[in-house]
Amino acid sequence: MNVRRSRMKVEKPVRRSAKRGLAPGSMVHIGARRTAEAGISLIEYSADELRETRFASIESSRTHESRLPLRWLNVHGVHDTGVLAEIGQRFHLHPLMLEDIANTEQRPKVESYGEQVFAVARMLTLSADGLTLSSEQFSLVLGHDFLLSFQERPSGCFEPVRERLRKAHGTLRGCGIDHLAYSLVDTVVDNYFDVIERIGERLDVLEEELFERPGSAQMASLHQARRDTLTLRRALWPLREVIGSLQRGDFPQIHAETRVYLRDVQDHLTFLIESVDTMREVLSGLLDVYLSALSQRVNQEVRVLTVITMLFMPAALIAGIFGMNFKSMPWLASPDGFTLALVLMGGVAAVLGAVFWRRHWLD
Amino acid sequence: MNVRRSRMKVEKPVRRSAKRGLAPGSMVHIGARRTAEAGISLIEYSADELRETRFASIESSRTHESRLPLRWLNVHGVHDTGVLAEIGQRFHLHPLMLEDIANTEQRPKVESYGEQVFAVARMLTLSADGLTLSSEQFSLVLGHDFLLSFQERPSGCFEPVRERLRKAHGTLRGCGIDHLAYSLVDTVVDNYFDVIERIGERLDVLEEELFERPGSAQMASLHQARRDTLTLRRALWPLREVIGSLQRGDFPQIHAETRVYLRDVQDHLTFLIESVDTMREVLSGLLDVYLSALSQRVNQEVRVLTVITMLFMPAALIAGIFGMNFKSMPWLASPDGFTLALVLMGGVAAVLGAVFWRRHWLD
Amino acid sequence: MNVRRSRMKVEKPVRRSAKRGLAPGSMVHIGARRTAEAGISLIEYSADELRETRFASIESSRTHESRLPLRWLNVHGVHDTGVLAEIGQRFHLHPLMLEDIANTEQRPKVESYGEQVFAVARMLTLSADGLTLSSEQFSLVLGHDFLLSFQERPSGCFEPVRERLRKAHGTLRGCGIDHLAYSLVDTVVDNYFDVIERIGERLDVLEEELFERPGSAQMASLHQARRDTLTLRRALWPLREVIGSLQRGDFPQIHAETRVYLRDVQDHLTFLIESVDTMREVLSGLLDVYLSALSQRVNQEVRVLTVITMLFMPAALIAGIFGMNFKSMPWLASPDGFTLALVLMGGVAAVLGAVFWRRHWLD
Amino acid sequence: MNVRRSRMKVEKPVRRSAKRGLAPGSMVHIGARRTAEAGISLIEYSADELRETRFASIESSRTHESRLPLRWLNVHGVHDTGVLAEIGQRFHLHPLMLEDIANTEQRPKVESYGEQVFAVARMLTLSADGLTLSSEQFSLVLGHDFLLSFQERPSGCFEPVRERLRKAHGTLRGCGIDHLAYSLVDTVVDNYFDVIERIGERLDVLEEELFERPGSAQMASLHQARRDTLTLRRALWPLREVIGSLQRGDFPQIHAETRVYLRDVQDHLTFLIESVDTMREVLSGLLDVYLSALSQRVNQEVRVLTVITMLFMPAALIAGIFGMNFKSMPWLASPDGFTLALVLMGGVAAVLGAVFWRRHWLD
Amino acid sequence: MNVRRSRMKVEKPVRRSAKRGLAPGSMVHIGARRTAEAGISLIEYSADELRETRFASIESSRTHESRLPLRWLNVHGVHDTGVLAEIGQRFHLHPLMLEDIANTEQRPKVESYGEQVFAVARMLTLSADGLTLSSEQFSLVLGHDFLLSFQERPSGCFEPVRERLRKAHGTLRGCGIDHLAYSLVDTVVDNYFDVIERIGERLDVLEEELFERPGSAQMASLHQARRDTLTLRRALWPLREVIGSLQRGDFPQIHAETRVYLRDVQDHLTFLIESVDTMREVLSGLLDVYLSALSQRVNQEVRVLTVITMLFMPAALIAGIFGMNFKSMPWLASPDGFTLALVLMGGVAAVLGAVFWRRHWLD
Repeated sequence: MNVRRSRMKVEKPVRRSAKRGLAPGSMVHIGARRTAEAGISLIEYSADELRETRFASIESSRTHESRLPLRWLNVHGVHDTGVLAEIGQRFHLHPLMLEDIANTEQRPKVESYGEQVFAVARMLTLSADGLTLSSEQFSLVLGHDFLLSFQERPSGCFEPVRERLRKAHGTLRGCGIDHLAYSLVDTVVDNYFDVIERIGERLDVLEEELFERPGSAQMASLHQARRDTLTLRRALWPLREVIGSLQRGDFPQIHAETRVYLRDVQDHLTFLIESVDTMREVLSGLLDVYLSALSQRVNQEVRVLTVITMLFMPAALIAGIFGMNFKSMPWLASPDGFTLALVLMGGVAAVLGAVFWRRHWLD
Repeated sequence: MNVRRSRMKVEKPVRRSAKRGLAPGSMVHIGARRTAEAGISLIEYSADELRETRFASIESSRTHESRLPLRWLNVHGVHDTGVLAEIGQRFHLHPLMLEDIANTEQRPKVESYGEQVFAVARMLTLSADGLTLSSEQFSLVLGHDFLLSFQERPSGCFEPVRERLRKAHGTLRGCGIDHLAYSLVDTVVDNYFDVIERIGERLDVLEEELFERPGSAQMASLHQARRDTLTLRRALWPLREVIGSLQRGDFPQIHAETRVYLRDVQDHLTFLIESVDTMREVLSGLLDVYLSALSQRVNQEVRVLTVITMLFMPAALIAGIFGMNFKSMPWLASPDGFTLALVLMGGVAAVLGAVFWRRHWLD
Repeated sequence: MNVRRSRMKVEKPVRRSAKRGLAPGSMVHIGARRTAEAGISLIEYSADELRETRFASIESSRTHESRLPLRWLNVHGVHDTGVLAEIGQRFHLHPLMLEDIANTEQRPKVESYGEQVFAVARMLTLSADGLTLSSEQFSLVLGHDFLLSFQERPSGCFEPVRERLRKAHGTLRGCGIDHLAYSLVDTVVDNYFDVIERIGERLDVLEEELFERPGSAQMASLHQARRDTLTLRRALWPLREVIGSLQRGDFPQIHAETRVYLRDVQDHLTFLIESVDTMREVLSGLLDVYLSALSQRVNQEVRVLTVITMLFMPAALIAGIFGMNFKSMPWLASPDGFTLALVLMGGVAAVLGAVFWRRHWLD
Repeated sequence: MNVRRSRMKVEKPVRRSAKRGLAPGSMVHIGARRTAEAGISLIEYSADELRETRFASIESSRTHESRLPLRWLNVHGVHDTGVLAEIGQRFHLHPLMLEDIANTEQRPKVESYGEQVFAVARMLTLSADGLTLSSEQFSLVLGHDFLLSFQERPSGCFEPVRERLRKAHGTLRGCGIDHLAYSLVDTVVDNYFDVIERIGERLDVLEEELFERPGSAQMASLHQARRDTLTLRRALWPLREVIGSLQRGDFPQIHAETRVYLRDVQDHLTFLIESVDTMREVLSGLLDVYLSALSQRVNQEVRVLTVITMLFMPAALIAGIFGMNFKSMPWLASPDGFTLALVLMGGVAAVLGAVFWRRHWLD
Repeated sequence: MNVRRSRMKVEKPVRRSAKRGLAPGSMVHIGARRTAEAGISLIEYSADELRETRFASIESSRTHESRLPLRWLNVHGVHDTGVLAEIGQRFHLHPLMLEDIANTEQRPKVESYGEQVFAVARMLTLSADGLTLSSEQFSLVLGHDFLLSFQERPSGCFEPVRERLRKAHGTLRGCGIDHLAYSLVDTVVDNYFDVIERIGERLDVLEEELFERPGSAQMASLHQARRDTLTLRRALWPLREVIGSLQRGDFPQIHAETRVYLRDVQDHLTFLIESVDTMREVLSGLLDVYLSALSQRVNQEVRVLTVITMLFMPAALIAGIFGMNFKSMPWLASPDGFTLALVLMGGVAAVLGAVFWRRHWLD
């Protein structure tokens, strides 16, 4: 119960249809609002220097002046279309791009808008109890000297990248802004490993249970796991295409050195996709295990019923026969009659029991 | 019941075979007649000016004179082949094109006829109760300076586009006639979101029900939902190819600026197709849930039967034994005999009940 | 029963293996003989003139002299290899082509033999009761100024084409011989619509029945429908490739104007193929409906059995108890004892019935 | 039983792993030894002349001198690696080619080794009772003026080809050595028709049985037929690729005239592959028929059980009631009491029987 | 039980997610540690000379001086990242390559890093009892004059290759270092044959059992076999791509002579992949066999229950009737009454038994 309920709260498609009739390029936030306030943080850096700024609001950022060559602006909370609009204006973003950033029900994709590359990916989070898989949108705009990243809510996910940036002589600072974009995507993909490993463990537990004490509760878990693999597939498959396109060199903004690293990310995604496909096969196998266990149990119960009927019915018939009211019946007057009747009952039962035992019905 | 009946009324293929033996290019209306009268409306516009005309009949339109550079002629009710023939003559449409407009059982497609581009798509409507999905044909002919659109019946669907056109300085009026064609297709695709979201909600309700009180009524709903996804697929898959072909630049009538927007429509269609595929997977999962619930219930009922038989049969045998007519039987004469017999019955039942309880048969 | 039997008579593969060991190009008739006598008819025409001749035998045709530029020779009854051989000689047909015409178990295909195009398609016929689907071979040889068509038996199928030819100023006569070939193929494809629509209606009836009174007879219908879709697929899929190849312009014998019409035929085939695929999905859904209905019924029957056992067993036990022969038993001497016993039986039954009713077991 | 056992004897993969650790190109015979002695026969021919020689052993062939331009050497019994090695040396065969000839568990393939074309196909044989399908390897080496063919055992399969060769003025002798190679492959493919037609007939019988008296024996036949289609697929699919590659002209050793004939073989293979795929679909349908028949039968048996219980339990209860020992009970003293009781029993049974009959439970 | 447990120990994905947040190129050992100590052995050779060295530790190898042109360095135990790092430095390996060597959960792949080719494959081992399939990583780095191979633990697998190398005039020594790399891969693929043959034999045994005495234990074996085929597929499919890429000549380090041999390996892999696919089909067939056997057994048990009930219930009713306490009942006073009653019981049972026997219910 809990399983399904939690899923429905999260995955329920939020009214994309609210946009019907609007002009294309109209910026409307689609999806759940996952954080109270939008937050904006800026990291400017060169090989030698780094400056971090966290803005209280979009207004406060207007006066900020950039002096370092490379800028990474991270925004969380894309429901605030005012913020998006202002950023869009400042960085000359195409209206369709802004529309896609605000609509958090996007499929992963990469698109070229003149000098800018726009990419969308999905971040997956498994709740602490491992039962609820949620999927958020993560968008990137890569320009010549800046990188914009948009998340639905603040996640600590990029903290390690920031740490690596802060190190004065790390490789990250020395490479171009495209390498920073790669690092973010790599971090997102690394997170998938955790999600998939934990779902895999859930499956192992489920398998163990199904073989030991199959029950209807496991059917709900199976169904839930199946839905989770669908969510995973929808996040992973198109992302692999995205990375493949970046890695093949369709976009001049990505330098050759970075492409070697993207090939690595693509390998990871292929590995993950195969893992998910394996999971799906295992799930389908577990369903068969469950259904055959159900069938097996009906088997056993009918057998028990048959055995009981077989053992008691003849005895009951014998008792019924000696309960008839005929004037002249054998054994009735004999002092051993009662004992003989009981022995007869027991004898029939013993013979039938032996037959069943020989046929392995009493296992 | 209601579910299936309504579907059959709508989807029943209307005698396409009526055309057997006719020469190719013969214009015959195929499909249900969905409106009483054909209606024709014309919007002429330039960047600065706009003129709307609604014609009472095809005859009344003969005297109309066009002065503005771009024209959009919308026709609803394609069963009136006289109207189609006259329009065809006026705009030099190929006979095969007219045949396809009148035959409302077309598959979405796009074709080049010299200077004109001809496209067919399907409009989907879900009835107010969410149970009946109907599919209508929508055809477009894009010429150098005109756009013809054909619908099976008047739908308010294009009203927002008209509204945007009426705005004196909207972007829509400034762009070419191909952008207007894009806007209509975009509107059609936007409508799919509503349909698919509502079917998705129906599935969520069905899932809830299947886990809580599975019954045979849900099987009909499952089956109906499956048919709906087939209808959706037949509308969506070929349309994506159509848009892909338009967006790749196979047709010179579509300008580069419009292609960026068509890429967006293609993304939406891919998203929708994946949603429908996910639905299909979920439906197949729900079928498994239903079948396993049935199997589970047979299980429980056989178990109840077995438990009852197990508890009452031994007691009945004991009663039968003490009902035998032997002269000399123990306990019969004893004043506590009856009580002892009842205690024996109860004792056997208690022991067996305990055994079952230990084996979790009484849950 | 009737369903299956009729299918087997028709579809049973006729000994193709009879040709083992023969040299390639050996003309052997494979398949059922569907007509007593082979029949030959010739239509010669130009834009202005038309002459029809029906030959009594191949011998009588030897003296016939052609004066009009275009000739269409139609042969029905390909089992007469003598006729085929003579025609082959007269029109310089390749031995492999003749072999394929005589072997009526061909897959639809198109092949180029020097100046001639050779095409094979299948004609489908649904018997009047809609239960038996039969498939015949139809071969075409398109030369520079002649068209040969071969059918297994006379069918009225091409009569409308002849009618159109006979009209003095019809478009058909004015176009080349390739347009006549297109018209024949178009007629064959138009016939598919009728077949598929009628099978679709059979499915609708079957669906209705399966939901209302599922029984084992419907399983045979399901199975038969499944086999029919296989036959349809084997006729339609390769034919689409054939038309695609003709339409793309792989064969110089097909002029550009005719190709536009072939594109239309290809659209129809794609529509039909999707209809068949939809049917297959619906069939697989109906199988699930049937199996779940069976399972549901076992459910109900076991429930009835359980309820009966539950209601009568306790009463029988009470009767058994009061039938015991103990000297001192309560109630026995009381004048109301019998009534009390009956009330006890009825009471237990009523309580249990109430329990079942609350659990919705008595629906 | 017999079915499975025979299959296992034949298909059991013969230790390919015996070659582990050997250098590549090591010639080891893999597979069952199917003939006692290897046999070598040579046919030399030109358009005018033909000479046949059958060698007692490889040694005796050393002194043989060739005078005619074209040579066909046929070897049966590839387990004799000495023979293979000597032939390999004489015709300059690549070690990997010899390795593949000796390893009879190859997948059909075609490979170019310099001037030679090497092809592997599988010959299928169905035992006389139609139950055992066995698969042997058939290898061809096509050189400039010679053709080597290798079989696992002598089969009369190529006798018709030899007959055609012996005819002084047959077409076969006039064509190149590649046409002879084509003739052998054509013969092998022609044999497939026989195998597949006979398996198809087995399926028709099985279908008849499944609808008339479904039983567990048919499950084994179904399973066996399924395995046979797998064997067929593994022989047919790659062979089609092989023929396709030869026919497309990837190998200069195959002349254009022969390629027309190879296109014919490819058509046959496509036809056969579709037949096997149809069989697989039919088999899967038959499985559903069988499972639903099983389910249907449980249905009927439970119904019989329920009806019996329903008819006898009330009567037994009535008998039990009148067997109670109450002092004052109605009817007991009445002379018609017994008759009344019996009538009551019969009446209840009749009423229930009528109810069941109305519900179609007694069919 | 044992089956599943052993699998879980081996296949359980070892925390790949441990690397989250680390910079790309960070070398972390992922996977189980399969050997205590890393071991390093070096073979240097030319066509004439060969020198083998086994290093106690990485430190001891620092002073080693190479004099022969070709070097093969084999490392087992990749958990020791210190060793890997030093080797990486000495041979100028790319950090991503080292990362992949240490992460033993890689998918087979081949990548070019400048002058070096990096390939990953999986070695499969089936435990002695044939129940546990484990998969280890095997990495190769092919340079201009050196070959590095990395295994997870020492396996005797490459001993035959070493033996062939040691032979003074073997072909292996004469060929380039790429031929040595091919030999290692060939050995790995040869090992697959053994694994797949043994799993195939397990399936044959399982099939035999399922037809003779189907039980729930076999379900676990089926499930396990299914998982094994998944593991096999994940090892084989990508490896075929790898070999295909090497064989097509994408990498200049592989010479043309070696490519002929790689084509052979690719054939083997295709054969193995088809074998695994066949296994999967057979497994799915066996599942159907098992489920139908279960269903069949429920059938039989219900039938036994029905027959028993049918035989005893009427007799019990007769006994009950003659046990009623009516004053005037027929037969009671008659001395043959009891015998007549028994004969009646037996007669009814005999008639019903005959009915059942005629209906083949007593088989």
